[in-house]
Amino acid sequence: MKALPIAFQGERGAFSEVAARKLAGADVEVLPCPRFEDVFRALAKGSASGAAVPIENTLAGSVHENYDHLLNFEFPIVGETSVRIVHHLIAAKGVPFSQIRRVFSHPVALNQCLDFFAANPRLERVPFYDTAGSVKMLMEQDLADAAAIASEAAAEIYRGHILRRSIESDARNFTRFFLLRTAEYARKHPVRASGVNQWKTSIAFSTRNIPGALFRALSAFALRDLNLTKIESRPLRGKPWEYLFYVDFLGRADAPNALNALNHLRETADFLRILGCYPKGEPAPTPRARKER
Amino acid sequence: MKALPIAFQGERGAFSEVAARKLAGADVEVLPCPRFEDVFRALAKGSASGAAVPIENTLAGSVHENYDHLLNFEFPIVGETSVRIVHHLIAAKGVPFSQIRRVFSHPVALNQCLDFFAANPRLERVPFYDTAGSVKMLMEQDLADAAAIASEAAAEIYRGHILRRSIESDARNFTRFFLLRTAEYARKHPVRASGVNQWKTSIAFSTRNIPGALFRALSAFALRDLNLTKIESRPLRGKPWEYLFYVDFLGRADAPNALNALNHLRETADFLRILGCYPKGEPAPTPRARKER
Repeated sequence: MKALPIAFQGERGAFSEVAARKLAGADVEVLPCPRFEDVFRALAKGSASGAAVPIENTLAGSVHENYDHLLNFEFPIVGETSVRIVHHLIAAKGVPFSQIRRVFSHPVALNQCLDFFAANPRLERVPFYDTAGSVKMLMEQDLADAAAIASEAAAEIYRGHILRRSIESDARNFTRFFLLRTAEYARKHPVRASGVNQWKTSIAFSTRNIPGALFRALSAFALRDLNLTKIESRPLRGKPWEYLFYVDFLGRADAPNALNALNHLRETADFLRILGCYPKGEPAPTPRARKER
Repeated sequence: MKALPIAFQGERGAFSEVAARKLAGADVEVLPCPRFEDVFRALAKGSASGAAVPIENTLAGSVHENYDHLLNFEFPIVGETSVRIVHHLIAAKGVPFSQIRRVFSHPVALNQCLDFFAANPRLERVPFYDTAGSVKMLMEQDLADAAAIASEAAAEIYRGHILRRSIESDARNFTRFFLLRTAEYARKHPVRASGVNQWKTSIAFSTRNIPGALFRALSAFALRDLNLTKIESRPLRGKPWEYLFYVDFLGRADAPNALNALNHLRETADFLRILGCYPKGEPAPTPRARKER
């Protein structure tokens, strides 16, 4: 029986596919989906065994839409990874750089390469749906005056030739991805503890509308020396002064001090959900340092 | 002497222009800029008297890039507002809906109207650089088979005709904007306290790498009953376990309890910057409620 694929949003060769392979294995089958919601639906209806979804980017912030899907679909997070967003200029084999006049890509990618375009004013920027999709299109149409901006994976998949490497203006562009599984899959295939150095737990909770509510909530972790690696608030719709919080902390959700902290948090939280417990990924690749102290 | 314009990123008619007019007056002169950095540079070199910049979106999260520019350029925040992202289908006057075959817009806007496209399968989606820019283009080229997706302001500016209103799939799409001024302008034109019901202060700080550091930092606010309206962490580049925090709290930065809280925070923070103190905008228009409690 063939293993079910890992779903991701975008065309083959998208950065999400890069993340899917880092998380689930280089040779894993993948299922490209048009929208984030389709990724979650693929997992829900059993046409995928897992999903790789972006959750935050060092320049663009948290992908709240995927946090919403996480809360609605309830698939556990079983892994995390970070992918550096590196943009390459890709053309059909045999097309020299001097022949390029048009460059296709998603507008966000085009805008992340403005220094390259300033240095090459003859190049026209042409917005396209998708970074990897723009490589696919120019290979299919065999364009001899055009290139695309996309990942190395996209160049490999569509057999494009990389004319210029790493043309992004800001190298500090990383996206963090989660690997999700169905609850049933996660139960049957628990992550093996051997070899895992450190665990991370992601939770979402909301606080009651009382002064110092967040402070009380965080005491549950501080009093037990549990280190937070992320905290973010989101106002709740139609509930002024009530917030949803996303918190990641180091440790397993089923370790005694974490269990105590979560029970303590339940005393003050209106709502609490454990989104997942998973091996900590590589050190957080992070945004620019401050200029001054 | 003519007043200097308010800078914003995007073409005339962008949602940032809508925000600029809400923040600085309906008749204000505006200066469209290609990139966020150009907006800040326009203010730095004196070609604008202020700037309207997006800082967070209910679906897409915080615009970290603009937080970075705020820290680097040090322009004070003097106002905030929220704009609901409403997408209209816009065509040249006299072009009926039945004649439309292609729809131009930024891919993000096209993707936010997928239910509309599903209901109208004859419409081809054509990615374009900018929402407002797509209206400008189709009016200039007088396209008779095309429409664009953009704001009401874009329809007005380029004299387009709105064929279908509010075609976005998710109405819970709001962007929060800051109004920035140069420090000199803010000193000469302080926001008048009369008529301001509530103030908000935005700060950024980093904590030392000690257990419970954030908890201690927040005690400065909790012990003084200062209400937080936002908290977000960002890992610091090259400094594992050190974080930059963005916090908004209700109150003026120069009120006695806020001064005490900020002094208290300075004892434990490695770095602290007051980003601005400004009248609180309309109630936070917020994301989806949770399905369950």
